[in-house]
Amino acid sequence: MPVRSLARLLSVAALVAFAAMASLVAPDALAQAGAKQNRVVMQVSDNDPAKWNLALNNARNLQSDLGAANVDIEIVAYGPGIGMLKSESVVGNRVAEALGKGVSVSACENTMHGQKLAKADMLDGIGYVRAGVVEIMQKQQQGWAYLRP
Amino acid sequence: MPVRSLARLLSVAALVAFAAMASLVAPDALAQAGAKQNRVVMQVSDNDPAKWNLALNNARNLQSDLGAANVDIEIVAYGPGIGMLKSESVVGNRVAEALGKGVSVSACENTMHGQKLAKADMLDGIGYVRAGVVEIMQKQQQGWAYLRP
Amino acid sequence: MPVRSLARLLSVAALVAFAAMASLVAPDALAQAGAKQNRVVMQVSDNDPAKWNLALNNARNLQSDLGAANVDIEIVAYGPGIGMLKSESVVGNRVAEALGKGVSVSACENTMHGQKLAKADMLDGIGYVRAGVVEIMQKQQQGWAYLRP
Repeated sequence: MPVRSLARLLSVAALVAFAAMASLVAPDALAQAGAKQNRVVMQVSDNDPAKWNLALNNARNLQSDLGAANVDIEIVAYGPGIGMLKSESVVGNRVAEALGKGVSVSACENTMHGQKLAKADMLDGIGYVRAGVVEIMQKQQQGWAYLRP
Repeated sequence: MPVRSLARLLSVAALVAFAAMASLVAPDALAQAGAKQNRVVMQVSDNDPAKWNLALNNARNLQSDLGAANVDIEIVAYGPGIGMLKSESVVGNRVAEALGKGVSVSACENTMHGQKLAKADMLDGIGYVRAGVVEIMQKQQQGWAYLRP
Repeated sequence: MPVRSLARLLSVAALVAFAAMASLVAPDALAQAGAKQNRVVMQVSDNDPAKWNLALNNARNLQSDLGAANVDIEIVAYGPGIGMLKSESVVGNRVAEALGKGVSVSACENTMHGQKLAKADMLDGIGYVRAGVVEIMQKQQQGWAYLRP
């Protein structure tokens, strides 16, 4: 094998190694992408309509500043905050508006069970998570920022 | 040195370089592992027994939903929240129960110093951190999720 | 080209490839550095001077425990918390003191606009961010820990 062919072969090998490296580095690249993509999970756990309005204001401001297409927002209501998502909620109209603009809104089924609430007792169009606290933890561990309005 | 030996030598060198790379990438792999393992640090900084109960409820729900073996939980009480961990705390029994189930519960020594509290004034079995706020920051920077009940 | 020169050339090439890899891995290294460097973004969104004092206490404790040079702290006031940074704020002196010690203190321009506040209405020396909630999200996604005093 002439030396020149060997050199060419090794260049190819180096490229292959480089590509392999790059794929190893990919999880980090994803983490970086996470740093670019805007994602926020908001905790609503107070029985306080002022807090519910703040959460909805925060979501609206995030969308208006970044563009609704450029930010993922999930509002998770649990414990004493579950009232935000009951049918008779004083912020029902605003929740519907947020849902219409692509905000995820999730009720904690653990809390609903504890308060004997069925889905029929809740606002239309919302989502459900088994445990609000688990959802909030997992979202953070997937790179979402946390906000407690 | 024959070209074939050189090629073999370079292959080995490439593997060594690859291994070195992989070890460099390892911290990221750990971060990924962190994304799988469930870890939550909870802040208790309100002088409000309702909040103390919420923190304990949240810990219980995390353990019951994920399995106590599958989630690390640390409750850090500091500032106005330190009362949760005093001997006469109204949630003393529940703190003992949480400790028994493997939840870490830590009191801030800075706060204790400021309020002239000694360890003898505190609940049995709890842990201590020099500064609650530093503990909460460091846990997050080690990949723990944050929760303020 | 003698084989020895080729080997030397390839060693150099390997080093160059290694350096290229290292630069790819750098974002991760930075994330690690972030895990070592202490960085906290604090949310102040309550119209409650007790909370403002707690935020300032937390900042002071972080600096005294870690050394002011070893921790980056940003306090972001928005929504109902904006009063902390108005000229007539009851914690004006303490904010000035924190600024003097290198704490960043930022007011939300969205909130100021909503409350018809100009920079002339605010404390001297503070900074401004377009949207407090975006700032708090982005800092977290850059590896800062979150604290809501």
